[in-house]
Amino acid sequence: MDRIPILKMGQYLLVTIQVDLYDRLALDLESDLISHITQTNARGVLIDISAVSIVDSFMGRILSNIAGMARILDAATVVVGMQPAVAITLVELGLSLTGVHTALNVERGIELLRTKTGGTIEPSDYDEPSDD
Amino acid sequence: MDRIPILKMGQYLLVTIQVDLYDRLALDLESDLISHITQTNARGVLIDISAVSIVDSFMGRILSNIAGMARILDAATVVVGMQPAVAITLVELGLSLTGVHTALNVERGIELLRTKTGGTIEPSDYDEPSDD
Repeated sequence: MDRIPILKMGQYLLVTIQVDLYDRLALDLESDLISHITQTNARGVLIDISAVSIVDSFMGRILSNIAGMARILDAATVVVGMQPAVAITLVELGLSLTGVHTALNVERGIELLRTKTGGTIEPSDYDEPSDD
Repeated sequence: MDRIPILKMGQYLLVTIQVDLYDRLALDLESDLISHITQTNARGVLIDISAVSIVDSFMGRILSNIAGMARILDAATVVVGMQPAVAITLVELGLSLTGVHTALNVERGIELLRTKTGGTIEPSDYDEPSDD
């Protein structure tokens, strides 16, 4: 596999990381995501890492980079599905995911994104219209 | 990676296939999906194969199997994101994905699932209430 697929769901993008992120793949993911954000006017990025058993400093930096780049383009980033062991290791190693929000699963991640992005401009199937 | 993650989105399940499905992984995916359908009362399964460059007879049978099992549990299966080359090969090889619906992307897949499953019982963020 040469690319990690990016799925558009309403005004959010969903990425499921299932393989080890080596350098090239990680850089491609960053650039692909940023391109997708601009092309689709996405307001948020969901990154599912439920299949990831180890988040080391490299992976942590990639996630922070993505969040930083997305924020510049006015999109929030939420990492979802983190395994309990990964959360334990992150704290024990003192690694912090700078600028990255986390949520338990995709559904809560979307709720969080909705809060972060402050309502919707174009209501879609994934995003009920809000009048506030 | 030992398992393909299954994401719950409202009353639908989403699976992104990013790696080659060898025997064990495919069987695990089948059983995991069926378990998830029963646990979550899912009405539909979306399988994204945008990262898959070859759908051979084995993969085709796995997709058909999943669709068959899901249908018994009253859930529809939609395969989304198929690459153009894959569609060409399927037709040229005369492979048919029995019982499997297809849609261009995740968003259209969800629309199709909504049609197939005939409205919603529990409206969620991903599924606007319908009164028909």
